Amino acid sequence: MGRDLSALFDPVSVAVVGASDDPAKYGHAIAAQAIRANGRRPVHFVNRRGGTVLGRTAAPSLSAIGEPVDLAVISVPAAGFEEAVDEALRCGARALVAITAGFAETGDVGRARQEAVAERVRAAGAVMVGPNCLGLADNTTELFIASDTFTPGGVALLSQSGNLALELQLRFRPHGLGFSRFVSLGNQADVTLVDLLADCARHEGTEAIAVYAEDFGDGRAFAEAAANAGKPVVLLTAGRGDASARSAQSHTGALTTSADVVVAACRDAGVELVATPRELTIALAARQGGRRASGRRVAVLTDGGGHGVIAADAVEAAGLAVPELGEPTRERLRSTLWEQSAVANPVDLAGMGEQDPQSYARTVEELLAAEEVDAVLMTGYFGGYAASEGGLGGGGTALADGEREAARLIAARHRATAKPLVVQSMYPESPSCRTLAAAGIPVFSATEDAARALAATAPGAPHTGVAPLPSPAEPLRETGYMETRRALEAAGLVFPAAREVRDETELLAAAAEFAGPYVLKALHLLHKSDAGGVALGLAGPAELLAAFRKMHARLGAPSYSVEAMADLSDGIELIVGVNRDPRFGSVAMVGLGGVLAEALHDIAFTLAPVPADRAAHLLRQLRTAVLLDGVRGRPAVDIDAAAAAVEAITTFAAAHPEIAEIEVNPLLARPDGALALDSRAVLARPS
Amino acid sequence: MGRDLSALFDPVSVAVVGASDDPAKYGHAIAAQAIRANGRRPVHFVNRRGGTVLGRTAAPSLSAIGEPVDLAVISVPAAGFEEAVDEALRCGARALVAITAGFAETGDVGRARQEAVAERVRAAGAVMVGPNCLGLADNTTELFIASDTFTPGGVALLSQSGNLALELQLRFRPHGLGFSRFVSLGNQADVTLVDLLADCARHEGTEAIAVYAEDFGDGRAFAEAAANAGKPVVLLTAGRGDASARSAQSHTGALTTSADVVVAACRDAGVELVATPRELTIALAARQGGRRASGRRVAVLTDGGGHGVIAADAVEAAGLAVPELGEPTRERLRSTLWEQSAVANPVDLAGMGEQDPQSYARTVEELLAAEEVDAVLMTGYFGGYAASEGGLGGGGTALADGEREAARLIAARHRATAKPLVVQSMYPESPSCRTLAAAGIPVFSATEDAARALAATAPGAPHTGVAPLPSPAEPLRETGYMETRRALEAAGLVFPAAREVRDETELLAAAAEFAGPYVLKALHLLHKSDAGGVALGLAGPAELLAAFRKMHARLGAPSYSVEAMADLSDGIELIVGVNRDPRFGSVAMVGLGGVLAEALHDIAFTLAPVPADRAAHLLRQLRTAVLLDGVRGRPAVDIDAAAAAVEAITTFAAAHPEIAEIEVNPLLARPDGALALDSRAVLARPS
Repeated sequence: MGRDLSALFDPVSVAVVGASDDPAKYGHAIAAQAIRANGRRPVHFVNRRGGTVLGRTAAPSLSAIGEPVDLAVISVPAAGFEEAVDEALRCGARALVAITAGFAETGDVGRARQEAVAERVRAAGAVMVGPNCLGLADNTTELFIASDTFTPGGVALLSQSGNLALELQLRFRPHGLGFSRFVSLGNQADVTLVDLLADCARHEGTEAIAVYAEDFGDGRAFAEAAANAGKPVVLLTAGRGDASARSAQSHTGALTTSADVVVAACRDAGVELVATPRELTIALAARQGGRRASGRRVAVLTDGGGHGVIAADAVEAAGLAVPELGEPTRERLRSTLWEQSAVANPVDLAGMGEQDPQSYARTVEELLAAEEVDAVLMTGYFGGYAASEGGLGGGGTALADGEREAARLIAARHRATAKPLVVQSMYPESPSCRTLAAAGIPVFSATEDAARALAATAPGAPHTGVAPLPSPAEPLRETGYMETRRALEAAGLVFPAAREVRDETELLAAAAEFAGPYVLKALHLLHKSDAGGVALGLAGPAELLAAFRKMHARLGAPSYSVEAMADLSDGIELIVGVNRDPRFGSVAMVGLGGVLAEALHDIAFTLAPVPADRAAHLLRQLRTAVLLDGVRGRPAVDIDAAAAAVEAITTFAAAHPEIAEIEVNPLLARPDGALALDSRAVLARPS
Repeated sequence: MGRDLSALFDPVSVAVVGASDDPAKYGHAIAAQAIRANGRRPVHFVNRRGGTVLGRTAAPSLSAIGEPVDLAVISVPAAGFEEAVDEALRCGARALVAITAGFAETGDVGRARQEAVAERVRAAGAVMVGPNCLGLADNTTELFIASDTFTPGGVALLSQSGNLALELQLRFRPHGLGFSRFVSLGNQADVTLVDLLADCARHEGTEAIAVYAEDFGDGRAFAEAAANAGKPVVLLTAGRGDASARSAQSHTGALTTSADVVVAACRDAGVELVATPRELTIALAARQGGRRASGRRVAVLTDGGGHGVIAADAVEAAGLAVPELGEPTRERLRSTLWEQSAVANPVDLAGMGEQDPQSYARTVEELLAAEEVDAVLMTGYFGGYAASEGGLGGGGTALADGEREAARLIAARHRATAKPLVVQSMYPESPSCRTLAAAGIPVFSATEDAARALAATAPGAPHTGVAPLPSPAEPLRETGYMETRRALEAAGLVFPAAREVRDETELLAAAAEFAGPYVLKALHLLHKSDAGGVALGLAGPAELLAAFRKMHARLGAPSYSVEAMADLSDGIELIVGVNRDPRFGSVAMVGLGGVLAEALHDIAFTLAPVPADRAAHLLRQLRTAVLLDGVRGRPAVDIDAAAAAVEAITTFAAAHPEIAEIEVNPLLARPDGALALDSRAVLARPS
């Protein structure tokens, strides 16, 4: 059920250790915030030098307060940090918020220091956020121990950056988005992102969870917690590029994970991954009120052609459709609009909105009611008449009043349906648009933002969650070619017949056991293909022997594998691998083999193990998947068999955390099954 | 040199025909604008009913004015349009702006009407913008005959939408971008987008040209004019998606062209293609002042890690690099920044900016001076201290003053270098950011906008321009297999030996002329491959004869082609085609053949003819181009020979406008040359 963080978010009492009367000190800002909800709970200030802070007497130490302290905020110089934490624990604090910096972010010595402190915190049965954090706020319990005020609302923000939190606050405001909680993650020495995510998932006042993280901590646990959150989770993350990875590492001492893996884990867990504060805001504004479209068909409404076609393009570019409206809907629109109005979709009032702003409202009503429409985008000038008392056309107050009334009607119509309505306006701050926004209709200034918001309300692929890890198996000690092959065979993978041979006698004995053509592989070489250690298509024993003599003379390998050569015709070569990521554990990769697929980077990643149905889905999503269905008269391959092989390989790898990387390449997908033609594995170095 | 539009943009006198005192009429808004620059030139009002307009006596007709009228604005009901135009021409008007609607946009009858009018205008040696336009404005000559006022500046806006022009005006303002000219394109019955583009290219007061067009008119002429403009041309266009193409067609009666072709033509012509008003604004804001980066290396500066890494990712996602700074630069930064400041790139002041805002200015100076940096992005909180008199940290007026001074220093430093500096700020409207913007430093609220602006200043691929059309050749009358093949051979393409045969005797005679293996093709079939009309790899005359008998019994084709079969090993199959677009003429397409390339839509388009060097470049840009270089031990193919073949095919097609489509598929690119293995052509239907 996760850790109990009640003392963190709703403490009985609070003490700010390091509270200061000096406005330049962070302990001043925290103290000023902490007393905002004065009656809610006792708030004490502690300052070594005593004196007063904000007109209150500061205790010289926690123990001098003489009352129990539930939550201690530690904002003292790094040198006094351990002492302050230990005193807080002695005084019975169940939760600590450690503002003090100078730990893991400064190097290994600092990391060791914070780990020692975290252990003492846990041993005392307490919890600690930070160190090196900016504090936290919970609007639902009126707990304010961050330097900034956060507008109340439904979003819990867990952030590793204070300035980004400020930017989000500025961006949220016009959308009526506010915060249930804000937590500055800091170094996550004790309470982690995962703990906080799980707690916010349980938190009644939180409707959606927004995360900015450079360090995921236990990435797999993050993915699992997000998949089970039961609320939208939107993740803003950095480290996709070279420079940000370099910087994040130096900034928080965080190990970064490849962007492919983060993308895969988020997709598996149903986390919406965004790259900028603007994208995060759009995603949350779109999900406000929990409205979801039941399909991808959007009606676009404008007054004046340009905005309609630009928006239609943007909507289609966002992956949605702008289908022609059905004749009954068009007929209904014709009966209420002008003759020159376009009713096909985009719907264009063609100037009618300027004469009769109610035509916007009537059209929105018809479009929301149309069964062939899943969501509506209104775009363009709407808002301009009330913004300038009648707009640029000189329509005067009557037109402005008409538009305001239209906005009220649109808001009412919106309330009466479940379909998403999103607005792009040249005048998003106008009274009419404010009426719409207040009714929970997202209003954007940029067309592409509105289109993206619509896409966020559309039904996506259902997320699959994270498959549970299998029980660890008996660790492998050797991962030579034959050992790996045998282990994978035992896991259910099918290989062609093979015999390990050391000399010509064994070679010929092996050849007698199955028919040619044969493959000969030199073993115990790091890259046997590159070294010329693989000979294919050896028709019979004579050719096999000749190849053996040549290869052995050249390479002198200690042993070789004689194998039945698979029939490659009608087969498609796949590649299946599993690597261990420091954050996300076993991560699987599937793709089409061959040089073209490599050049196209046509590879799908996902957390291992990969159930067969999921593997089949991933294979079908490859850009080159058309090859699997049989082209130019070739039969389709058995995707289910290939998917079963992917499940076997990835489950095996997930049960063997000692394996750093394992690869079956190629896995030959054929019309009649899947055959592993080669494999290799590497053990993790003992750390 | 293009048409003389001087009477349109700087007339000696103006008359508004249809001027009205009724504020609900467009003739009122135009009249009110027209007299804004009162002393510049005589402005007359004409209203059939006489009376007064805006306190001036309106003449009952143009001829009643009694003075020559250079430019006549026609804003009368459609029924009186022809009469008004004819009277204007009689009165010696050299230019007309036709506001009146109800022509091509309503159907064929209206189109015929406007064409007849346009012919009379041209016959009189005059020029006409519209009909169905909103007017025009020229801030450089103080000519105002649109309903809106446009802030003066360097951008000429040629737009087919009035509301989009208004949105652009709103978006331009915070960037200090304004307009030299605005022209509402209307139906382009006489003066076209191309005429206006050419004139704006020559116009001294215009620094950049922004176009919103649904109908390009003569697309090739547009591309040529843009390529030769000598100024940035940014094109906002719709019609990429299904719905917008449908709508644009009904909106303006415009034939739309495939999105691939528009993209290709813009790339050829060096036109920046954008999809939304926001993107257009970013492109122009970035190009303001004409600053270009000499490379793609960006230094990112922030104070507080989150913004730095998010921006670094955005910069890399925009196709730029954020390289680690060299040791000398890092050393210089270390000497001026805090110990905990990060100096590698992103550069993170790590809180120093809040203590000492000058540290921003010193760092910007060092980064602009660093030879390993081509452009600088400052991102995050800067602007916040002066926005709230000291920022949220409570730094007070001193901090706000410090930030304002830092902004002045940054502006001065920017002036002293030629490198682009772009700013993302949480407070773009703050005094400090306004100081930066006033100095020509683009300031954005969104990180991705700042990154995109930087990308717009980076050196792109030099545009190639549009190759001149070859002189038309003697039109083909037949495009049967043999005729097309012979014509392409004459154009320089190499085919394997082939003989057309009608019976077994001719078949064996043909086989005696060259060695096998042979290919047999049935001719006069629409899709010979699909119909089983192609037999490959016939080893000798006996196999050829057997295949002929079978094929002839099945298909009974009137004739067949016997061909020498090319050696396919070491060859890569390309596809080269040329289609005729109604707007852009001959458009070439090159790509890798084969089913995988088809599935990936890995095809490049460009205007034909395609010079060989350009063809080679296009081939190398394909995602699957790696195959051309020889993989898995195969030799590289002769790209120059393939490119020469592309030049031959596309030059041939461009000289034969009667060909609707022609395709060489496959063109076999081999290590020793390029060989056309099959071709087909279709004549355009006579219209």
